[in-house]
Amino acid sequence: MPRYRLTLEYDGTPFFGWQRQEDIPSVQQTIEEALFRLTGETVTVRGAGRTDTGVHALGQVAHLDLSREWPTDRIRDGLNAHLRPAPIVVLAAAPVAEDFDARFSATRRHYVYRILNRRSPPALDRDRVWHVTYPLDAEAMTVAARPLLGQHDFSTFRAAECQAKSPVKTLDQLDVLREGEEIRVLASARSFLMSQVRSMVGSLVQVGSGRWPESRMAEILAAADRTACGPLAPPHGLYLARVDY
Amino acid sequence: MPRYRLTLEYDGTPFFGWQRQEDIPSVQQTIEEALFRLTGETVTVRGAGRTDTGVHALGQVAHLDLSREWPTDRIRDGLNAHLRPAPIVVLAAAPVAEDFDARFSATRRHYVYRILNRRSPPALDRDRVWHVTYPLDAEAMTVAARPLLGQHDFSTFRAAECQAKSPVKTLDQLDVLREGEEIRVLASARSFLMSQVRSMVGSLVQVGSGRWPESRMAEILAAADRTACGPLAPPHGLYLARVDY
Repeated sequence: MPRYRLTLEYDGTPFFGWQRQEDIPSVQQTIEEALFRLTGETVTVRGAGRTDTGVHALGQVAHLDLSREWPTDRIRDGLNAHLRPAPIVVLAAAPVAEDFDARFSATRRHYVYRILNRRSPPALDRDRVWHVTYPLDAEAMTVAARPLLGQHDFSTFRAAECQAKSPVKTLDQLDVLREGEEIRVLASARSFLMSQVRSMVGSLVQVGSGRWPESRMAEILAAADRTACGPLAPPHGLYLARVDY
Repeated sequence: MPRYRLTLEYDGTPFFGWQRQEDIPSVQQTIEEALFRLTGETVTVRGAGRTDTGVHALGQVAHLDLSREWPTDRIRDGLNAHLRPAPIVVLAAAPVAEDFDARFSATRRHYVYRILNRRSPPALDRDRVWHVTYPLDAEAMTVAARPLLGQHDFSTFRAAECQAKSPVKTLDQLDVLREGEEIRVLASARSFLMSQVRSMVGSLVQVGSGRWPESRMAEILAAADRTACGPLAPPHGLYLARVDY
């Protein structure tokens, strides 16, 4: 069966995450239903990352198998027509080899976390940014982030429900950039533990606010203990930005 | 009576424009009602620009008079609390001289128009950008925009309902910038005719798509005739970005 790869953008607000669940709307199920309306086939769509409730995507990748070959433009445009009015769009569709797996073939995942750091709440970016009213020191956050780079036991930054076999991951990038009122945290790794990015961002904000010294980040990493983590950053600031293969 | 200046951000989607009208929601009325809840006073708020239905603001400016002095932090935070859940926020409140007038004291208004130029519709920026699916040549648009700079009779780019005394305006900036899939048109002038920015953008898109030659823009300007204008660009790509005094 021919296999296709989809690149997806979505607003995570109305969905209970990527993964299909009983009786509640998910991104995966919404795409599978649109695929059924387009092709008449019951297809399972497998994503590179299982984004949580409220988490957005700028470039999620998924794969699926169809019983016959389809022009990729028809998959993209047909799916976009059948997805409406759900806030999910197919940016690209491409044929891939039969052994391509959106989840297991990925070599790097890139996340962006957006913080609006000002007194007034967002009017235009509601549900798109974490609104933090107290001033954040992005340079302190940058310094604090450094010890997390490389291979570590990330148990401190791991959700209790995480099913990964090992808490050891290799973090390739954790940059903190300020542009005006917005702070962006860029995180890249081959793979992440469940809630790892939101856990790291929540802890970095503790440093940025001055509640924690810069050195605390390295200490909580070394503790390898979930209870040492800062408060989890909310999901609506997080974007799965890109997946490399 | 002490006069205050507000800087405002809003999502224009749920409003029938800035200006108060009978029985339909407007930005002005929503702010005046929040002011009444905060101060107990019936206050008129006067804006620098009367944004149309669906048009957004990143930095609209308005002024208002109160019967007594208020700490500006209380005006900002109190109004923001009373505005909720409407997507309008006060970014700043400041005391101004009694003769300050948000509309008539303005020396320059800055608008941004956002075009998403790709095949797939926006999932995250719905109601925030004009989605144009055919490829646009931003360089051709830049060249076509040049003859509009300076003082001209802008009758071609003027809505039929426009109440300005004269169609002669001085356009200080009309830049077209591409960044990835997005094209931004930046327009600045002391003041604009009604629908002038959307009329100019709609005509520039005719050039960008190749339907019109670059030279057509200067020709329709010289015609000083509304019927020579391209189709009006939709309101939801337009932002009142800043007002100078």
